[in-house]
Amino acid sequence: MEDAQHTVTILPQNVRVTVPAGTLLLDAIQQAGIETDVPCGGQGRCGRCLARTEKGEVWRRPNAHLASAQVALGWALSCQTEVRGDVVAFLPPEKVKQEVVVASAARIPTSTRTGPPEDPVISQHYLELTAPSLQDNASDLERMLTALANGRGIKNVSISLPVLKEMERALREGDWRVTAVVEHAPNGGQPRLVAVRPGDAGDASLGAAIDIGTTTVAVVLVDMRTGRIVDSATSFNKQISCGEDVISRIIYSQKGDGLKHLQRLVRETINGLLGELCACHDLDTKRIDHLVVAGNTTMAHIFLGLNPQTIRSEPYAPLATRFPQASALELGLRANPNASVYCVPAVAAYVGGDITAGILSSGLNECTGTALFMDVGTNGEMVLGNGEWMATCACSAGPAFEGAGVECGMRATTGAIEDVHINYKTLEPTLDIIGGGPPMGVCGSGMIAALAELLVTGLVDRGGRINRSHPVARQSQRGRIVSTDHGPAYVLAWAEDSGTGKDIVLTEVDINNLIRTKGAIYAGTLVMMRALGIEPAELEKVLIGGAFGQHIDVEKSILIGLLPDLPWDRFHFLGNTSAQGAYHALVSKGARQKIEEIASKATYVELVADNSFMNEFTSTLFLPHTDIDTFPSVKQLLAELSSNGAGPVQSREKVVGP
Amino acid sequence: MEDAQHTVTILPQNVRVTVPAGTLLLDAIQQAGIETDVPCGGQGRCGRCLARTEKGEVWRRPNAHLASAQVALGWALSCQTEVRGDVVAFLPPEKVKQEVVVASAARIPTSTRTGPPEDPVISQHYLELTAPSLQDNASDLERMLTALANGRGIKNVSISLPVLKEMERALREGDWRVTAVVEHAPNGGQPRLVAVRPGDAGDASLGAAIDIGTTTVAVVLVDMRTGRIVDSATSFNKQISCGEDVISRIIYSQKGDGLKHLQRLVRETINGLLGELCACHDLDTKRIDHLVVAGNTTMAHIFLGLNPQTIRSEPYAPLATRFPQASALELGLRANPNASVYCVPAVAAYVGGDITAGILSSGLNECTGTALFMDVGTNGEMVLGNGEWMATCACSAGPAFEGAGVECGMRATTGAIEDVHINYKTLEPTLDIIGGGPPMGVCGSGMIAALAELLVTGLVDRGGRINRSHPVARQSQRGRIVSTDHGPAYVLAWAEDSGTGKDIVLTEVDINNLIRTKGAIYAGTLVMMRALGIEPAELEKVLIGGAFGQHIDVEKSILIGLLPDLPWDRFHFLGNTSAQGAYHALVSKGARQKIEEIASKATYVELVADNSFMNEFTSTLFLPHTDIDTFPSVKQLLAELSSNGAGPVQSREKVVGP
Repeated sequence: MEDAQHTVTILPQNVRVTVPAGTLLLDAIQQAGIETDVPCGGQGRCGRCLARTEKGEVWRRPNAHLASAQVALGWALSCQTEVRGDVVAFLPPEKVKQEVVVASAARIPTSTRTGPPEDPVISQHYLELTAPSLQDNASDLERMLTALANGRGIKNVSISLPVLKEMERALREGDWRVTAVVEHAPNGGQPRLVAVRPGDAGDASLGAAIDIGTTTVAVVLVDMRTGRIVDSATSFNKQISCGEDVISRIIYSQKGDGLKHLQRLVRETINGLLGELCACHDLDTKRIDHLVVAGNTTMAHIFLGLNPQTIRSEPYAPLATRFPQASALELGLRANPNASVYCVPAVAAYVGGDITAGILSSGLNECTGTALFMDVGTNGEMVLGNGEWMATCACSAGPAFEGAGVECGMRATTGAIEDVHINYKTLEPTLDIIGGGPPMGVCGSGMIAALAELLVTGLVDRGGRINRSHPVARQSQRGRIVSTDHGPAYVLAWAEDSGTGKDIVLTEVDINNLIRTKGAIYAGTLVMMRALGIEPAELEKVLIGGAFGQHIDVEKSILIGLLPDLPWDRFHFLGNTSAQGAYHALVSKGARQKIEEIASKATYVELVADNSFMNEFTSTLFLPHTDIDTFPSVKQLLAELSSNGAGPVQSREKVVGP
Repeated sequence: MEDAQHTVTILPQNVRVTVPAGTLLLDAIQQAGIETDVPCGGQGRCGRCLARTEKGEVWRRPNAHLASAQVALGWALSCQTEVRGDVVAFLPPEKVKQEVVVASAARIPTSTRTGPPEDPVISQHYLELTAPSLQDNASDLERMLTALANGRGIKNVSISLPVLKEMERALREGDWRVTAVVEHAPNGGQPRLVAVRPGDAGDASLGAAIDIGTTTVAVVLVDMRTGRIVDSATSFNKQISCGEDVISRIIYSQKGDGLKHLQRLVRETINGLLGELCACHDLDTKRIDHLVVAGNTTMAHIFLGLNPQTIRSEPYAPLATRFPQASALELGLRANPNASVYCVPAVAAYVGGDITAGILSSGLNECTGTALFMDVGTNGEMVLGNGEWMATCACSAGPAFEGAGVECGMRATTGAIEDVHINYKTLEPTLDIIGGGPPMGVCGSGMIAALAELLVTGLVDRGGRINRSHPVARQSQRGRIVSTDHGPAYVLAWAEDSGTGKDIVLTEVDINNLIRTKGAIYAGTLVMMRALGIEPAELEKVLIGGAFGQHIDVEKSILIGLLPDLPWDRFHFLGNTSAQGAYHALVSKGARQKIEEIASKATYVELVADNSFMNEFTSTLFLPHTDIDTFPSVKQLLAELSSNGAGPVQSREKVVGP
């Protein structure tokens, strides 16, 4: 076998090379003259050397970057795959790679649905009414309600005064032909007319799912007839000018007209997005007939003009966790003024509607085994449970992942380093920069990646100290380890390559900050699990929500001890679960009802009231943890790396291409 | 018997006279030197000589002015009662007389109820909540809802954004002790918090029942805890400046901002009354937590800002007959801005919520036999039916009864002649004037009385012509029959006695006008009855509502052919049935539900679409009717009067005092 030669055909380039059996597919590709970006240096960790084996026998090392379903389809990391026969391999374009690697992300389906939702919150009806006569001089309203009841089976519909006035005009303008828009309440509540438009309003009734984050506001514009997503957009929450986190916003709200000002800012943010989305698609914002808003408890309070003051101080009892339904008019939103605005209910002061919505869209509420849902941002919110029960907790992680309190930290915007690979031979980093331009700083996912790479390469020890005497670091001409005002630091980008004109570094102080942040989240998770008698290994799924969660890397997160050490296929990165949940609640009555059930069912574990949290937190202030035996895969990897400079040795298994 | 002498003792004066058996009690009273006002000259028609026989035997002519229950209590008209033994008679003060004579008027009970209503629309709850702690940090709202659910059995309560904001302040101000005001929906709908006030709000939650008449607006202020009426007040509808009747209001509403202006005027009228009533009792209008409004369909449309235009023209299909519930804030009313305003549903364009409310308060909807409900004003609305079915119709009676189109006509305000008796011997009138001052004109009830008296005394013939050659009229020194620019006329008051400095007259043209008015109402009633196969004699009850109806006289109304010729005890004058019905709907969920049922059940008979209406109308243009056989009692009376100058001879029956 060792002497056998095999032909490797590489598509789409259709280049052929002959290599000895056992050659790494990556080496065959490079031998064929095809340039391949391998930031991790071939350790099977960056996922950039993805290929699909179309034909032929290969041996492939199991790898958490790929789900078993993907392996079955022939996907492989070429740096982890040996050629064992004549092989045809396909190198996908960049976009396909991303889709494969960000495994099973339960995104909002952007494809057009084939029909309207089964249990729509909004339904649209074109009605041809008969004009009144002396023989039938029922009122216009009775005429409309009878048409809805007899023609569409929608009975007992209520109407507000403004919609009744609109109906009067529409009936005349449309000559008794109108399009009625009905909002259906979950739980058999009374349906209500939200719009009556003249004639056959060919255009759809629209809806908006809105995620109000402390930092970012996302709006998803939806065709309510079909549930199809028309478009979505995000922008910074204009409240940022009044404070970066919820606590500073609450403090701001207590001064003079602070609350009103903050409410106006978030309204402006949302209205800007609604206006922009509608303008892009030549739609009228007045056609937005329903809105669903999900946000953390503080954001929801401020959005509704409710005093958030008690959220800030013990005993953290907010004014409300379920919110009154209000109209777009009442809240000043750019939409049909009679549209209802449903605010997703919260669980507690620090487990908001964003988490309730997230639980729904993550599917945790339908799991049979125990699942963990995490939404990591300035605060970390964790939910443990399944279809039967749910426990939630929250901890203040600090703003490190949001870019604050870190020397060169920044938010995940253009110029942010979002991923880092450090070549174990040269210690030189390869950077992924949002927008592709010169780096301006490093965002949360970049920090996690950098910290994990520094640990793996031995540049940082498990206590978070930078190793100034690393053999390779000393060898290199221009050492990546430098001294700064904040102690030793690793240089991610030199001043001449950066957009700021200064070195972009990660200092030992930054690293300490990051360790406290990841520690708080992991400690919170663990305390809640202990309280409920669940061991990490019992977790069937770890569902990671939040815009930030979408960009982090399982392996690197486990390496630093942010996520529990579980097989990688148990992790699911779900993206903006808050916006997704809001979307579901926007289009489906059933989803709305489930959200209400989740908010009722979920209990809240107050970590502040639990002494074990501080103990646990102290134990997490190591990489990955004081007790490395709780992270066996990391223990093994670190052991292997220290004994073998060429990277971890793992068992190999035989796989055959389709 | 004829020669026997009897002693008559008169109380409270305690004067004694001896009279021969068979003497009229009235003569005995006058013989005792007690002055008694007998405007009808002793014909048993004015009811002013009322006395109660405390002891002794009398013979009494049966009289429609007295119900049998009153006779049983000893009440008698002394001009119709013969002394047959030693008698003790009590002469009641004026106020008692009025109460007795205006029989069985189902007025709003003004006495304090002994307890709260059984099925209140509004309930008030003093709650002592526990402050939140780390062990129980449920939100303020959950805390409140739990207290209502567990402590008071009120579940699934909804709250609006403004009330939630109010709750936040109240909880702090009251140190977790608050008074919650809950509105209960009929038909098992969701209850809702309408106010949360700090501490134990000793004062009651208030409510307002509002009757919006085209001419007059009435407001009844109610203590919602007990259902007790605090006070009531009326004032002219400020819209009068824009037209006297609904048609002219509708025309006004179509010009520029006419509708908004009219809406503002009625709002100002209501707010003035609410403010005045609350100021009088040192109450805060902000405590008015619920309002019920009843008005005709046009008034309801304008009050709500709905376009009434289609009410005016064929096919008379209004925009709505059921009205959206709105808030006091939305409608600009001086009340708790979060109070709901329930607008009583209408049946059709010309059968409004005032009639629906009137049906409820008249009890027609609970009758077993067939009853007729009438509300006579500028328009006449008639309802025929019982607990099983109801038919309604409306006719334009013209504004004569409201004082318009009549030479000396005026509304029923200070200075209006509201009742007239003409002495059959002298043809001199005795006038009842509202406010007691000099007469300024004659209002609707005064016109009916004057016309009936003119007919009875032979001054006017059945065709409505004034008899210039009446023997007595010719005899009198200063003839009451004069010539005017509008033909011959009867002088009700000479210029020197009137407040206007001119003769107050009723001309032949006026009489013609009045005949057409009463004719339209009677014809409408009859057409509807014919359509349903009901004969007038089958009517178990005739229920007369409306402020105007409260002041008219059964006998005189039958005489002129406005009311059907039925035994007088079948007529019930109910006063402002619209306000009464609104009151019931304000305090009781059951009444609210009944009102909804009435509006659903009642059918509408369109008289305009019915040729028989014009035929019937033509027949009614006589006094009382072309076919006098349909008014047998009038036929008999007129025959008797013409043959016997001393008044009608009737059979007498023996009654014994208690």
